[in-house]
Amino acid sequence: MKRAVVLLSGGLDSTTTFAVAKADGYAVYALSVDYGQRHRVELDRAAAVARALEAVEHRTVKLDLRAIGGSALTADTAVPKDRGADEMSHGIPVTYVPARNTILLGVALGYAETIDAADLFIGANVLDYSGYPDCRPEFLNAFENLANLATKAGVDGTRFTVHAPLLKLTKAEIIALGLGLGVDYGLTLSCYDPDPTGRPCGRCDSCVLRRKGFEQAGVPDPAGN
Amino acid sequence: MKRAVVLLSGGLDSTTTFAVAKADGYAVYALSVDYGQRHRVELDRAAAVARALEAVEHRTVKLDLRAIGGSALTADTAVPKDRGADEMSHGIPVTYVPARNTILLGVALGYAETIDAADLFIGANVLDYSGYPDCRPEFLNAFENLANLATKAGVDGTRFTVHAPLLKLTKAEIIALGLGLGVDYGLTLSCYDPDPTGRPCGRCDSCVLRRKGFEQAGVPDPAGN
Repeated sequence: MKRAVVLLSGGLDSTTTFAVAKADGYAVYALSVDYGQRHRVELDRAAAVARALEAVEHRTVKLDLRAIGGSALTADTAVPKDRGADEMSHGIPVTYVPARNTILLGVALGYAETIDAADLFIGANVLDYSGYPDCRPEFLNAFENLANLATKAGVDGTRFTVHAPLLKLTKAEIIALGLGLGVDYGLTLSCYDPDPTGRPCGRCDSCVLRRKGFEQAGVPDPAGN
Repeated sequence: MKRAVVLLSGGLDSTTTFAVAKADGYAVYALSVDYGQRHRVELDRAAAVARALEAVEHRTVKLDLRAIGGSALTADTAVPKDRGADEMSHGIPVTYVPARNTILLGVALGYAETIDAADLFIGANVLDYSGYPDCRPEFLNAFENLANLATKAGVDGTRFTVHAPLLKLTKAEIIALGLGLGVDYGLTLSCYDPDPTGRPCGRCDSCVLRRKGFEQAGVPDPAGN
């Protein structure tokens, strides 16, 4: 069985990505990164998802991105609330974490090398939310190119592939895909600014996009967002 | 004054790289990563170097790569000793840390974004020691390409450059360059397996290469390796 490393935040997108990797026949090694995110409670959700979807293993790597800050998720900057689609579609939001996906994929690549996996899965998505530069297809292609130069791959013939199965799906399509694969979205947390018990704020960009997605998919959100 | 982020391990190469960046007129923001390395004492040396070379600031980011292991530097695997040049020139050594330079440059990129720096310096070097895939010029070029897709650069017109001024120098040439710039190599530590006080083992690949470098440069090593 081929092994894949799946970046798992505990949110809706990464959980669906995990289900896709599993449906594609991969033995899934789930990787979460505790990077000092404001919504750290999502890591508990990641653990619950990893159990429910039967990860071969689930590792959590600590990385203190608060030491560099620069984002509403890793510094004491307010998370924007109640933004409409128009506002969201312009510019890079303050919830952008500098170089986050480069770093997360870098850690995933290191993990993949240690377990002889050649496939990396990430829940990046461009359609609903194009403000993050490191969710674009050209970024993912550039990372895949880098991965094959950065590692033992050049020596032992391994060829890394970066999979982003949700890249061009709408949130509603992602939800429909996950439901078809039996995902329990009640386990997931999408909010950037939950209370300490993990209750979503309902008003950050991520909550707004999730709500719209469930509405368009025509199903209730089992997490009650 | 243009700002640069310099990856600073506290070793000979990164210290020389810092001196080059400074001589090139950059205000230097030094970045060290505490990744669980066996030779963690090098971080104290990094702090001493940052003070001596007058970094504008010096940040240390914690990243627990021991959670993924896979290297003699981050797992309980012995560091090879007393290897000759022939042995070193074949294959990837067990001291290779999976995806390390991808991750370190990723964190440096994030830091650079937060302080509006567009230049990253790394002490990668291919001639003396070609066993690490992520020290090759093609890797560094691929990272530079990635950096300009991964970040706000595409939006605000910033263009990141990855500088590796030691890339094609021998260890002896690096030492001569640093001495010309007034570097005090007595502050630096190159050993992969020092004792807890920071005394080098004298026998790992890094110690062997350093000793050979000072011999060829015709100067004594002030750190007494």
